[in-house]
Amino acid sequence: MPSPPATLRRPPVFDPAFRAKLADLFAWRRDVRRFRTEPVPAERLEALFEAAALAPSVGLSQPWRFVLVDDPERRAAVHRHFERTNRRAIATQDAGRAARYAALKLEGLDTAPVQFAVYCEPEPEQGHGLGRMTMPETTLYSAVMAVHTLWLAARAEGLGLGWVSIVEPAAMAEILDVADDWALIGYFCLGYPAAEGEVPELERLGWETRRTVQVLRR
Amino acid sequence: MPSPPATLRRPPVFDPAFRAKLADLFAWRRDVRRFRTEPVPAERLEALFEAAALAPSVGLSQPWRFVLVDDPERRAAVHRHFERTNRRAIATQDAGRAARYAALKLEGLDTAPVQFAVYCEPEPEQGHGLGRMTMPETTLYSAVMAVHTLWLAARAEGLGLGWVSIVEPAAMAEILDVADDWALIGYFCLGYPAAEGEVPELERLGWETRRTVQVLRR
Repeated sequence: MPSPPATLRRPPVFDPAFRAKLADLFAWRRDVRRFRTEPVPAERLEALFEAAALAPSVGLSQPWRFVLVDDPERRAAVHRHFERTNRRAIATQDAGRAARYAALKLEGLDTAPVQFAVYCEPEPEQGHGLGRMTMPETTLYSAVMAVHTLWLAARAEGLGLGWVSIVEPAAMAEILDVADDWALIGYFCLGYPAAEGEVPELERLGWETRRTVQVLRR
Repeated sequence: MPSPPATLRRPPVFDPAFRAKLADLFAWRRDVRRFRTEPVPAERLEALFEAAALAPSVGLSQPWRFVLVDDPERRAAVHRHFERTNRRAIATQDAGRAARYAALKLEGLDTAPVQFAVYCEPEPEQGHGLGRMTMPETTLYSAVMAVHTLWLAARAEGLGLGWVSIVEPAAMAEILDVADDWALIGYFCLGYPAAEGEVPELERLGWETRRTVQVLRR
């Protein structure tokens, strides 16, 4: 059933029970690298992209561009490219960390049923430049918030998202055949996670620990 | 009462009622430029910064840095700097839009009871470089997701956030006396909004309209 026109809807009430669950959502959102193989219904995926498009964007420019990757050859090319890039990344780690780094699983490219790239159109006509004269990077930031919106909406559906950044944007543009001037935000794996957890995997495996937030005062 | 150790907590269940409310939260989050003047309790503000620190971050690097601005002189300097920068921005609009641009209210610097800047430490030691060899901008993107987490948590509390990007990062670093190498993500106004709405103000005032999301297939 379609919603009533926006102007006729009353502001929702977010009660303490909702806020507690929202806190759980933030706490239990994970970067997922281990997926079960069952597919994600197409209408769920579509709803996630629509939720993403409610993200804030500078000047209402909506500069996010989603590229859904189903072709097995392109997926295999992405996977090979990741493997190559990750070997280089291992080599940049110092001796004490390289073995630990190599043991980490940093993506679910082999099993994730849904894979997509998110791009940003860096000079969108939409929005008419508002808000980006001195900080044009806010266009990129808008696309990042669309990813994060999708991430949270997915987690609330029991779906996990993994962000793959160990790739070269130029190589990815070639593999995915997208416009040269689009900026790659990331390549993403989506599916039902093999396990749930409240502790980030990098913390559980001893790579890094969370710190308490510090606020400077001026 | 402290929560039980994370490893002992069971995954939360996000039911359809929660998901519907979460969709409302996305739909009713606004960029707020008109605030009521009543203060925000300090413990609420602290809880918002703590929620923000649950955002995803590349390599668990948590590169966000919050700078709370209470000093009236610094606030006034930010406001003057915004006004100057915005006059330049008006001049970049074409003749057909300049008057409409000038009529928009793009910030709540005069009334927002809470004001803070968010910075990113661009080369954090925390995280040990994981995930950022080829895409170091993911560090900035992590800080953006912290802002967005705070934005959603605030809205669920009835608080509105406004993102001010019509400023020069170099001038802001001087006004706020922060490290030269920190990257400004934005300057933010927070408080109880004067009005609520489901339609972005830029859409309501005819500056821009939302488009439906397009997904490319590869």
